[in-house]
Amino acid sequence: MASISSNSTYNLNGGLWVRRAAAVPGNQCQHLVPKQSLLSQTFSVSTHAKRFFPIEESTRRIPRMNTDRCCAFGVEKTSSFSVGEKFQLDDVIEAQQFDRDTLNAIFEVAREMEKIEKNSPGSQILRGYLMATLFYEPSTRTRLSFESAMKRLGGEVLTTENAREFSSAAKGETLEDTIRTVEGYSDIIVMRHFESGAARRAAATASIPIINAGDGPGQHPTQALLDVYTIQREIGKLDGIKVGLVGDLANGRTVRSLAYLLSKYQDVKIYFVAPDVVKMKDDIKDYLTSKGVEWEESTDLMEVASKCDVVYQTRIQKERFGERIDLYEEARGKYIVDLDVLGMMQRHAIVMHPLPRLDEITVDVDMDPRAAYFRQAKNGLYIRMALLKLLLLGW
Amino acid sequence: MASISSNSTYNLNGGLWVRRAAAVPGNQCQHLVPKQSLLSQTFSVSTHAKRFFPIEESTRRIPRMNTDRCCAFGVEKTSSFSVGEKFQLDDVIEAQQFDRDTLNAIFEVAREMEKIEKNSPGSQILRGYLMATLFYEPSTRTRLSFESAMKRLGGEVLTTENAREFSSAAKGETLEDTIRTVEGYSDIIVMRHFESGAARRAAATASIPIINAGDGPGQHPTQALLDVYTIQREIGKLDGIKVGLVGDLANGRTVRSLAYLLSKYQDVKIYFVAPDVVKMKDDIKDYLTSKGVEWEESTDLMEVASKCDVVYQTRIQKERFGERIDLYEEARGKYIVDLDVLGMMQRHAIVMHPLPRLDEITVDVDMDPRAAYFRQAKNGLYIRMALLKLLLLGW
Amino acid sequence: MASISSNSTYNLNGGLWVRRAAAVPGNQCQHLVPKQSLLSQTFSVSTHAKRFFPIEESTRRIPRMNTDRCCAFGVEKTSSFSVGEKFQLDDVIEAQQFDRDTLNAIFEVAREMEKIEKNSPGSQILRGYLMATLFYEPSTRTRLSFESAMKRLGGEVLTTENAREFSSAAKGETLEDTIRTVEGYSDIIVMRHFESGAARRAAATASIPIINAGDGPGQHPTQALLDVYTIQREIGKLDGIKVGLVGDLANGRTVRSLAYLLSKYQDVKIYFVAPDVVKMKDDIKDYLTSKGVEWEESTDLMEVASKCDVVYQTRIQKERFGERIDLYEEARGKYIVDLDVLGMMQRHAIVMHPLPRLDEITVDVDMDPRAAYFRQAKNGLYIRMALLKLLLLGW
Repeated sequence: MASISSNSTYNLNGGLWVRRAAAVPGNQCQHLVPKQSLLSQTFSVSTHAKRFFPIEESTRRIPRMNTDRCCAFGVEKTSSFSVGEKFQLDDVIEAQQFDRDTLNAIFEVAREMEKIEKNSPGSQILRGYLMATLFYEPSTRTRLSFESAMKRLGGEVLTTENAREFSSAAKGETLEDTIRTVEGYSDIIVMRHFESGAARRAAATASIPIINAGDGPGQHPTQALLDVYTIQREIGKLDGIKVGLVGDLANGRTVRSLAYLLSKYQDVKIYFVAPDVVKMKDDIKDYLTSKGVEWEESTDLMEVASKCDVVYQTRIQKERFGERIDLYEEARGKYIVDLDVLGMMQRHAIVMHPLPRLDEITVDVDMDPRAAYFRQAKNGLYIRMALLKLLLLGW
Repeated sequence: MASISSNSTYNLNGGLWVRRAAAVPGNQCQHLVPKQSLLSQTFSVSTHAKRFFPIEESTRRIPRMNTDRCCAFGVEKTSSFSVGEKFQLDDVIEAQQFDRDTLNAIFEVAREMEKIEKNSPGSQILRGYLMATLFYEPSTRTRLSFESAMKRLGGEVLTTENAREFSSAAKGETLEDTIRTVEGYSDIIVMRHFESGAARRAAATASIPIINAGDGPGQHPTQALLDVYTIQREIGKLDGIKVGLVGDLANGRTVRSLAYLLSKYQDVKIYFVAPDVVKMKDDIKDYLTSKGVEWEESTDLMEVASKCDVVYQTRIQKERFGERIDLYEEARGKYIVDLDVLGMMQRHAIVMHPLPRLDEITVDVDMDPRAAYFRQAKNGLYIRMALLKLLLLGW
Repeated sequence: MASISSNSTYNLNGGLWVRRAAAVPGNQCQHLVPKQSLLSQTFSVSTHAKRFFPIEESTRRIPRMNTDRCCAFGVEKTSSFSVGEKFQLDDVIEAQQFDRDTLNAIFEVAREMEKIEKNSPGSQILRGYLMATLFYEPSTRTRLSFESAMKRLGGEVLTTENAREFSSAAKGETLEDTIRTVEGYSDIIVMRHFESGAARRAAATASIPIINAGDGPGQHPTQALLDVYTIQREIGKLDGIKVGLVGDLANGRTVRSLAYLLSKYQDVKIYFVAPDVVKMKDDIKDYLTSKGVEWEESTDLMEVASKCDVVYQTRIQKERFGERIDLYEEARGKYIVDLDVLGMMQRHAIVMHPLPRLDEITVDVDMDPRAAYFRQAKNGLYIRMALLKLLLLGW
């Protein structure tokens, strides 16, 4: 999405918009006021002013009647608005876009979202906004999470659960053409695709924000963000943590992205615990080394569990083994998180898992407060609420 | 869903909640005031207070600005609320949950819903609530009915039309894990599943209400409720009625549930009219006998039609006959409700059918005011509106 | 949908409705006031008064409490409303329904919708209305366009992307029965079907408006409308224009409908440029001749391009050629709109295409301001917003 520079006073939508003076990263929310709450009015921002958002206003707004041209359509009019700081990203395509400060700031917004979701399901800050979920391969969990996030903020959703089969893609339309059409119907596109790089191509075309909800073996940045957010929420810090990555480390984009993001923090130690056939690949190991992140490989899950703040278990993906079912069976049974492993873990430590889970974590673990995987899934909601808010309204 | 006991004053969501003094079953609505209408504000109840709902308030609310932490999110704040009587059910899993008083009370709410739907499509009492329709087998009719019910009350919906094929279930995730994830995204789950007992398992797991929209050969309780509601609406009473159940009585869970529910009323007489291969099974006959419900089997549809208040026709389900198409063809043609049968029926009597209908009721019957099946389908909307309201807001 | 005559004062929904005095076609909007904007209240019209809409009111409305029967349901009440002019059509089934005056009047409303969509995504004029998209064959583009239109106006949507496979149609239910059920759940049905004439049958059954979103080889009237609207928006006139129809003129219902509608305007000249195997059929040629519309066939796309105001390119549909892939390949390569063709076109002229596009327009054409096809797709949104507004609220 192309940028709009904002450095002065604007008159948009019949309302006054002024740029917010000084936004301190990590402190962005401080001066913002929920204008919508006054008289329960909804204020929607023009498509051309997606980056701006209302702040303090001096007087109670009296909605103005527009009796001239736009008659009979019940337009809800704004009066005087001010411009805030735009989000530094136009799209969310890959984990590499996020630096440490941005991550922390997003996590603060996610915390606010957590409160909103718990206390007031009726938030309406994205009322009037339309999100299109353009899923070229089905992923009910991810789709529902994004759609819930949008609706929890009062926004609306256009859904395509199976764009690949049903859409004009089947007739040979390019992704670019589809995006150009769908951007005409919506304000933001959440896209899942089977091809690596598809989200980037979509973002290059679209004039509205694109969120990558997974593109093939490529990226799934919101999953990476929710993982880091979960560690920060549960452990209380990211610097100095010890993380054990367990299971399929070769194919799981989740653990690869997580390893990447953890390298942004200080004194992190990572343990790789994987069956031989699905060991962590050299590119990530080399990257961690180059960033000064300590890592080691281990075959002793019990010992790793006793040392770590986070045991991040993953599913061995059967589909990767083709006809070698024997190898799959051997791999999947090798490192199971059960009550014995849990017994080795420290009191403050947690078990994470990107879900769905088969039997690589036994169900008796679920009852333990250290089983964080369902809270982790829920954190996905808060992270997605935060990103939708930031991309559509700014800080 | 676990219960919350409510017997005092609460301070929730920054608002005061007090328990409603004396709720008389069947009279529950009397003292409730549509708070939402004032200034068109929306009040949403915390997830942790799903059982409570607002009643009378003394003063005009002035929305309070929360300039502190929850800034810039447009939270619509409540001020002073009171607590009502919670609905006696946490979930709707099977017809057996409903006693006669509860049925009558639900029917009263359904009548109110009927008025709301007819007079003011813009009801917003469930605004801010999110219903997930988790359908493991497709049922467009039932899904649309629930989704319409939710939206007619201002609520929002997350849809999965084909959870079996698309969801992580395909990867081997348990129902329990799926429920734990989806309950994080929504406030109530409407579930259809191919396995008997699935809804009960979901309810045992979920901390939010579950509504069973059919689980395999098991239960479809909202269908049973709408059937009884239709009889009560159309005939004006349930005690003393005569009902002819016609068609596939062996496989139709509809007629089985209906027979069960009718046993709760006085002096009911039931006639079974079915081809030999799909006769009513002994378990229901024995149950009726044990409850003192008079029943008899008949092969004379004309005579039964002349005696009954309700002729409840059902579809012979081809899929039950496997390769014995000959048996199917014989069975399906045996008892047709046509103008001749209609001619035998009393003036006040009605024809019902759970739909879809093939040719077991001829289309010329549709024009007769006694053809109640499309009104019956519509009643499903009112019953579902009532249940959603009761499970989410209480009486 | 059956008509309601409106010629006096009504008392509906507890509010007063009076018929709007004199509505001049093409001038319809002039005296209408966005009542909804006042205090951000939403007013919903009774199902039985779909044709009416609010106009001028004298005083600020104070919402009235209804403490009597409809309690606890948060009904948003109207106070005093007036009746407007009903839309002259009950349903939108085929392009032939629209005369020139109606078209112009719809286009005026579409222009208003354009402003609404650009300036205030939060319009709520259709709040409380429910649109069912009943798609018996998938068409993601068309479905999203309609759903976006509904949601941009504050309305809600019930979606069935694959009604053919999933619905009770699979069990043998007639279209009429399905419509009778779905009309109970919604206020308007947008239907796509694989059989010509299906929309007309649905409209004959339904008591709510039906919009045909394409029925097999039959009609796709909203596409025809958006095409004409695009010409009028881009060229500024319809009388006297020259249009080149290019590509598959035999099978494309788009170009056939467009030719039909263009015949309603004065001094139109149409050029047909098609490979031999997919030439325009005689019925349309004869029709144009009978209406006095000048037309000619040409094989010289360059020359036609130089003369026309509009070059309307279409996709050669591979599926029409069966096993004769050679014929398809020959046909598809014959008339390509590329930079050379564009170079021949006049400055004010435009290139249109119903999309999806394969390579019959080269992508380098996209950058040229005369490439109107994505704007054309967007116009579909405005046309559909206008039709939904007109069918549900009237002029």
